[in-house]
Amino acid sequence: MRKLLVIILCLLKVSGLFAQQEKVDAIFRNALTSDVAYENLRILCATTAGRISGTPEAAAAVELTRQIMLQMNLDSVYLQEVMVPNWKRGEPEVARIVSQRFGTTDLTVLALGRSVGTGKDGVLAPVVEVNDLSELETLGREKLEGKIVFFNRLVDQRHFNTFDGYGGAVDQRFRGPAAAAALGAVAAIVRSVTTANHDYAHTGVTRYVQDGDNIPALAVSPVGADLLTYQLRLDPELQLYVRNTSHMLPDVLSYNVIGEIRGYEYPNEIITVGGHLDAWDNTEGAHDDGGGCMQSIDVLRIFLEEGIRPKRTIRAVMFMDEEIAQRGGNRYADLAHERGEKHYFAIESDRGVFTPRGFSIDAPSPEKLEAIQEMEKYFEPWGINEIVAGYSGVDIVPLKNYYEMTLAGLIVDTQRYFDLHHAATDTFDQVNRREMQLGSAAMAAIIYLVDALDLVSYDR
Amino acid sequence: MRKLLVIILCLLKVSGLFAQQEKVDAIFRNALTSDVAYENLRILCATTAGRISGTPEAAAAVELTRQIMLQMNLDSVYLQEVMVPNWKRGEPEVARIVSQRFGTTDLTVLALGRSVGTGKDGVLAPVVEVNDLSELETLGREKLEGKIVFFNRLVDQRHFNTFDGYGGAVDQRFRGPAAAAALGAVAAIVRSVTTANHDYAHTGVTRYVQDGDNIPALAVSPVGADLLTYQLRLDPELQLYVRNTSHMLPDVLSYNVIGEIRGYEYPNEIITVGGHLDAWDNTEGAHDDGGGCMQSIDVLRIFLEEGIRPKRTIRAVMFMDEEIAQRGGNRYADLAHERGEKHYFAIESDRGVFTPRGFSIDAPSPEKLEAIQEMEKYFEPWGINEIVAGYSGVDIVPLKNYYEMTLAGLIVDTQRYFDLHHAATDTFDQVNRREMQLGSAAMAAIIYLVDALDLVSYDR
Repeated sequence: MRKLLVIILCLLKVSGLFAQQEKVDAIFRNALTSDVAYENLRILCATTAGRISGTPEAAAAVELTRQIMLQMNLDSVYLQEVMVPNWKRGEPEVARIVSQRFGTTDLTVLALGRSVGTGKDGVLAPVVEVNDLSELETLGREKLEGKIVFFNRLVDQRHFNTFDGYGGAVDQRFRGPAAAAALGAVAAIVRSVTTANHDYAHTGVTRYVQDGDNIPALAVSPVGADLLTYQLRLDPELQLYVRNTSHMLPDVLSYNVIGEIRGYEYPNEIITVGGHLDAWDNTEGAHDDGGGCMQSIDVLRIFLEEGIRPKRTIRAVMFMDEEIAQRGGNRYADLAHERGEKHYFAIESDRGVFTPRGFSIDAPSPEKLEAIQEMEKYFEPWGINEIVAGYSGVDIVPLKNYYEMTLAGLIVDTQRYFDLHHAATDTFDQVNRREMQLGSAAMAAIIYLVDALDLVSYDR
Repeated sequence: MRKLLVIILCLLKVSGLFAQQEKVDAIFRNALTSDVAYENLRILCATTAGRISGTPEAAAAVELTRQIMLQMNLDSVYLQEVMVPNWKRGEPEVARIVSQRFGTTDLTVLALGRSVGTGKDGVLAPVVEVNDLSELETLGREKLEGKIVFFNRLVDQRHFNTFDGYGGAVDQRFRGPAAAAALGAVAAIVRSVTTANHDYAHTGVTRYVQDGDNIPALAVSPVGADLLTYQLRLDPELQLYVRNTSHMLPDVLSYNVIGEIRGYEYPNEIITVGGHLDAWDNTEGAHDDGGGCMQSIDVLRIFLEEGIRPKRTIRAVMFMDEEIAQRGGNRYADLAHERGEKHYFAIESDRGVFTPRGFSIDAPSPEKLEAIQEMEKYFEPWGINEIVAGYSGVDIVPLKNYYEMTLAGLIVDTQRYFDLHHAATDTFDQVNRREMQLGSAAMAAIIYLVDALDLVSYDR
């Protein structure tokens, strides 16, 4: 009798495994034969390029994604108010080398996000090239006063994961200009933090010091940086003329956009899947992160089409303002807390919509990490075999301020991302439908498993 | 004493593991910081687009790759004569729907490789649409005599590996036209075997019947195929006008291009690394397979730059004429046999130069497969974790006619390949430097390990 029970339990377990694999496979097959998210991304890119927070394009992106979800037969679609930064690039920037030996040479530049302007007359000053922040400190105020600091460190291409290369160089963009300002520099020009070797500048946010000195800060294209370092070597006396009219206006009202499928068993427990809706003003933001938004909406579409009824409420969230001040993500977490919501699991796609390779799990205990790692077997037929401890995503990480919960980031093939990240090259034609759809499926499948198997458990 | 020996042996083994890992890592880092192969591919694409066998462009590609290798300080660089097909597309093809209901509609088409022409007046005939070859057989001569057969099966997008989808549809291109001819059809139009949904036609070789009926055979773009099937449904009486002047000329002399680093211990044992130099006449052939050629040459560069002296002779081979009759690959194997060469291992890159995921191993015994599978640990830091039994490559597989040896194919991410395979969209700008270079490194590393560790053993 006891033996029979064990056999029955084993059979149930095995048939459960089969059922789960079948569901995961159905999710992937659905995604691979759909072009809905891809075509929605085409429209987002074509109509709202440059949708940095505070712009009409960002407002249009809010309305577009709201309309898309309103037509999907979801249980609810709504906006969440959030005040966002309203930084303006101003007139096209100028960076011009003025050299006795080489004459004048214009460089391709873009002001960094939050940069102040030079004033309309611009700034003309000698250039001091540094490799990193410690070199800057070593030079000190005496060598830097009145100068333009040129941060010229390259991304280290030797890493397999380009996020490692990016992470090793991005401090010069984020912290460099403020550090140079503190030592008396009059402007900063920063080599674009990119794996590409081309004449596009890659922007991105730089640190702004409240009640302190802030200097104009511009990203220069790799080609421009190479030109500048070459001319500097042969003519250390050259001067650089920089002009930009960037400025910050008062915060404006914007929105996170949310669509939900209500859970049938625990409707008050929330699973969040999201990306950020804003993108730099110089780009379509196809990979960063229009694609992640459309994948998140696609998770809901897949659940509806495959008839998967989730136990818990699944929310697709388009976060506003990831790029400048992360207001959308913080607002989402604050509101969740204020309203007493229960948050069970969250996943973000914000590393480009390339072929998925795994999930990066930020779990509150080794057991919860392992519970998700045990799901790897379901993903192997779909090329996903990297479920590891790691960072989730900028927009969902504020949930940790209030919840001891499991967060995840979709890991994708990273080789191409920093060729286009924050540059005009981040266009829809750089997105492959199948790669993007595998990402939608990967997120839908992990959410299905986490929810159906109660993977990360919860005190109710 | 005995214990000490065991400890020493263990230490040697561990230090060996470290040494091998270090070498593998050095190979990858070298590749990721080099742009030599990538820039060579740029030149190949810019100067020899359309280099199908028999063309001046193919001859130029032979000379270009020979010159590249002559400048590399290799032990020898030489050509191998091979007679190759000389098929000509002729004038731009026409395929025009003539419908009482819809008027005339031109479709985007390309003659399939080896197709005969319609004659200069073209062919006008009713259209019979079929899904597959068995439907063709069922219809039989009565329904097909005097008709144009339209093969309209789509690639099944539900497979993760796009080669599975391609393999499930390509019979209509390769065998369909000859089968239709045998049943009295006057021409065949075949839906492009592609994962993309665009207005480019994807060509490719079709079966030619010696001493039998051969009819004009054209690939139509996915957009064109959709138009044709739509109009056919509403106007089954429509006719299609097809015109092409494709024809086969007598074989011409061409070459495989070979560069070698001589082995210091077993110079008479050969390790081959290759790709094919020809590409369809409508494309730059960046991924298929200019990239594979430049990666193969790059394996030699990496060995030289990293100071890795191979025990065995390593040959980079640019095979001529993979696309039409595989003459280069067959010639290479025949000559190897005639000359009494010893062939130890061969690897080919001909699946596009995307991020490598593994190796497909065709080994003469399970032990030799396992010996290579045990190397997986060295590749894990570089994202490669799929060493499986499988097919190697079209150009190296003829070696099996004479040698009981281990062959390998580089497995890459397949999502994008059939968007561009055999179409005008296979251009250099679709190649990512890092993805390509990871492939060069993967091949260099597996060759290094196979050679240094005598992995596949050999009767000397």
